[in-house]
Amino acid sequence: MTPDEFRTHGKALIDWIADYYEQIEQYPVLSQVAPGAVRAALPGAPPEQGEPFAALMADVERIILPGITHWQSPNFFAYFPANTSFPSILGELLSAGLGVQGMLWQTSPAVTELETHVLDWLVEMLGLPERFLSSGAGGGVIQDTASSAVLAAMLAARERTADRGPQTTDSRQPTKDGALAAVGGRRSQTSGPSAVGNDPRLRAYTSTQAHSSVAKAAGIAGVGRDNLRAVGVDEKFAMRPDELRRLIEADRAAGLRPFFVVASVGTTSSTAIDPLPEIGAICREFGLWLHVDAALAGTAALCPEFRHIHDGLELADSYAFNPHKWMFTNFDCNCFWVADRAALINALSILPDYLRNAATEAGAVIDYRDWHVQLGRRFRALKLWFVIRSFGVEGLRARVREHVRLAQLFAGWVAADPRFELAAPAPLNLVCFRLRQGGDAANRALLERLNASGKLYLTHTVLDGRYTLRLSIGGTLTEERHVRAAWEEMTNDE
Amino acid sequence: MTPDEFRTHGKALIDWIADYYEQIEQYPVLSQVAPGAVRAALPGAPPEQGEPFAALMADVERIILPGITHWQSPNFFAYFPANTSFPSILGELLSAGLGVQGMLWQTSPAVTELETHVLDWLVEMLGLPERFLSSGAGGGVIQDTASSAVLAAMLAARERTADRGPQTTDSRQPTKDGALAAVGGRRSQTSGPSAVGNDPRLRAYTSTQAHSSVAKAAGIAGVGRDNLRAVGVDEKFAMRPDELRRLIEADRAAGLRPFFVVASVGTTSSTAIDPLPEIGAICREFGLWLHVDAALAGTAALCPEFRHIHDGLELADSYAFNPHKWMFTNFDCNCFWVADRAALINALSILPDYLRNAATEAGAVIDYRDWHVQLGRRFRALKLWFVIRSFGVEGLRARVREHVRLAQLFAGWVAADPRFELAAPAPLNLVCFRLRQGGDAANRALLERLNASGKLYLTHTVLDGRYTLRLSIGGTLTEERHVRAAWEEMTNDE
Ligand SMILES: Cc1ncc(COP(=O)(O)O)c(C=O)c1O
Ligand SMILES: Cc1ncc(COP(=O)(O)O)c(C=O)c1O
Repeated sequence: MTPDEFRTHGKALIDWIADYYEQIEQYPVLSQVAPGAVRAALPGAPPEQGEPFAALMADVERIILPGITHWQSPNFFAYFPANTSFPSILGELLSAGLGVQGMLWQTSPAVTELETHVLDWLVEMLGLPERFLSSGAGGGVIQDTASSAVLAAMLAARERTADRGPQTTDSRQPTKDGALAAVGGRRSQTSGPSAVGNDPRLRAYTSTQAHSSVAKAAGIAGVGRDNLRAVGVDEKFAMRPDELRRLIEADRAAGLRPFFVVASVGTTSSTAIDPLPEIGAICREFGLWLHVDAALAGTAALCPEFRHIHDGLELADSYAFNPHKWMFTNFDCNCFWVADRAALINALSILPDYLRNAATEAGAVIDYRDWHVQLGRRFRALKLWFVIRSFGVEGLRARVREHVRLAQLFAGWVAADPRFELAAPAPLNLVCFRLRQGGDAANRALLERLNASGKLYLTHTVLDGRYTLRLSIGGTLTEERHVRAAWEEMTNDE
Repeated sequence: MTPDEFRTHGKALIDWIADYYEQIEQYPVLSQVAPGAVRAALPGAPPEQGEPFAALMADVERIILPGITHWQSPNFFAYFPANTSFPSILGELLSAGLGVQGMLWQTSPAVTELETHVLDWLVEMLGLPERFLSSGAGGGVIQDTASSAVLAAMLAARERTADRGPQTTDSRQPTKDGALAAVGGRRSQTSGPSAVGNDPRLRAYTSTQAHSSVAKAAGIAGVGRDNLRAVGVDEKFAMRPDELRRLIEADRAAGLRPFFVVASVGTTSSTAIDPLPEIGAICREFGLWLHVDAALAGTAALCPEFRHIHDGLELADSYAFNPHKWMFTNFDCNCFWVADRAALINALSILPDYLRNAATEAGAVIDYRDWHVQLGRRFRALKLWFVIRSFGVEGLRARVREHVRLAQLFAGWVAADPRFELAAPAPLNLVCFRLRQGGDAANRALLERLNASGKLYLTHTVLDGRYTLRLSIGGTLTEERHVRAAWEEMTNDE
């Protein structure tokens, strides 16, 4: 494809995307294709000769589009949103166009410096503790997802724990032949678990309502999913600090090593908010790393009236939220901060010869490859910068407020209707509710009827053992009329 | 931004990108900014009110562009390429425009099915073993990077090891209060290390020339970087199978548990190719998982004449290569296959209530969230599909052949010049070389002079303890004249 062909096809694609957004309400929100239907329509073998761009776009319309669940539809109320916006799409386009890879500062200084800068901005925008600013011992980085962020936090916590206390010996067998050689030029910077392997006595804690990514991270890190304790919750589905303390004390008494707590600000099932001041105090008392997962809800802190969700955050060692959920920035974009970047870097840094360079050796720069699992990284800060500058902070706040207003309106309708009940508090933009009569079967049938209609898409969870519908409001294009239409569809029993 | 504004700004940005590629040779390849210069030019505080798109683009030109190292320049010969192409940029644009999140089949069936389909195509295109096809027990998935792929392979290997043999008891303390509760609805599907934590006797193996991501993965997984044995290499920098056997046997004799080997097809320093038939036979004999990392070099197998690099691959349990390095697909895009997908899924699957759905329960579909660290995922298959269809397999082969031809041409010039020597065999598109006189200092000075000129960018490695220059040829726009100019610049001593 020549630059001139790119101009032609690129502009046509820009129009195609604009058209898509103008027509988006016409598609069934949840794709209605059967398993295997998309594959069956694709040619069995790859083409030997190149094909014209028009042929690709024809197949996008004919084969791909029916297999799309329309996350950007204003009638998408499922899961949590993965919203986006035109400035974000353009930021992603520019990033793909520049095609730079920012693994080291040197491999594109602007990738690193814009990222550090925008993450410092966000500390201010969300009113986060100053200890997360890059000017001190902390700092922020863009991870792809909240799952990767909680894994990174767990690794940093594990590393810090090892630095602080005596080690068990059973994972410390003398190393044999070869163990001290430098693989790929590596030198272990620490003698912590990243170097010598896990201490099997490590134990982590999170509430029964925490996202499954916490357990997944415990599995990946070799801590073990069963060594993640499930702390009970109160009637609002928030972690009970007294339960947390009891579990930690019992584990310590049994000779185990509590090292890590994940608190949720906005749980996936019901946006419950764990009490950070009490949890943070317990973590301080026992020397545990506190990670706060605010994947969806963090965005609300743009508005001063919702900033109380972060009360106690100054006690946290790390914090993450997803602009790719509710801040109009397309997937993937998770923002992750640590108060002590040294622990994170100790856990993840390896410097082979082929990555050595003057800027890194001088210690004058950040090399973000040492802040996450991956080595290579694309220029994600660009889309986040485009979003913040195009909306302005006031523009972002206005949309967040509107989503919360719509959710509260809907919660009011549910509360006022004798056929329905609220299943949990609705502090922000998610409403959990169910039919009072007919039990799980009736609620499941209602969900299936709604989704099969193609008019809207919502998903369920289980709260207190009961099937519960979730209406999650965060689409960039969602307006009051869409929420009204959803309610009408729910309350119209054929 | 309204759809009409998006049309206007989007088209202008398409032109901007086309212009960028038309002018790309005018920029210094390696950014010449000093640390902190980009940040110093950015406004200290985020804007309260939204700004016009033109203001953003003005800052891109004024602040960002000088801080860019131009990876897409035809004079970029550093590291390995992260090449891209116009069809790939358009694929990424469309993916951002659709804004779908493919964590489950249901959340956009086309995201999953196109990915499975294109990865099956690639098995055919690269002549990979049929056991990697999705129609059998195996299958492919797009990971973000080769680093994530080797981590995923290690986790699957660890899980399979646990399933096969007796466990050590020291990491199997009886679980206490809370350990059996379901965090986020989780149920452990296995009693392997993901559930109960690592066996501290686990040992892994890779050559001294393997990429640092292998050691990084061992650290992350809690196996421990020091428990990754560094296997010696031969005079071509390829792993010595006799050394591998010796280390495995010694570890077994010491009561340890060898479980995982990473062989490299195309090492980072010199594109050395480990002998897969011998390594694979040893892995079979001792029941070890063999992962093959062909991050850069895998692409060469598009051409029948280079397919020998994969001889023995039928003995591998997993394999990965990066279309984002040398297959014209923009970062990030790593393709990863396993012969036994069950081991991978066992290691990574957790199914909370809020992710349950009929298609998943019926077992009729793939849910790729169980194939990697992350939960959410974007529609990456689109760009790969666009690249394959736009170039055609013949078009891809032609470019790969040309890059190899250029590297061989350059290697010939080096070999014929008495001032220089080749530092390693150059089987594909990377040439390692150095000045014969003046030792490391002279070679370092040469590299610094070249990079400071802005005319080209190359990086170094260390081979046999000696500083070595690397000329890596894989830019989409690189032609013979660029390689000639690079050689002239090198041989023109001021
Ligand atoms: C509270 C919470 N944490 C983590 C995640 C995982 O998000 P990601 O896809 O970014 O890993 C989610 C996703 O819904 C979530 O709700
Ligand atoms: C052989 C090899 N493996 C792995 C990697 C890591 O690549 P990624 O950035 O995709 O993790 C590289 C990068 O150069 C490599 O050369």
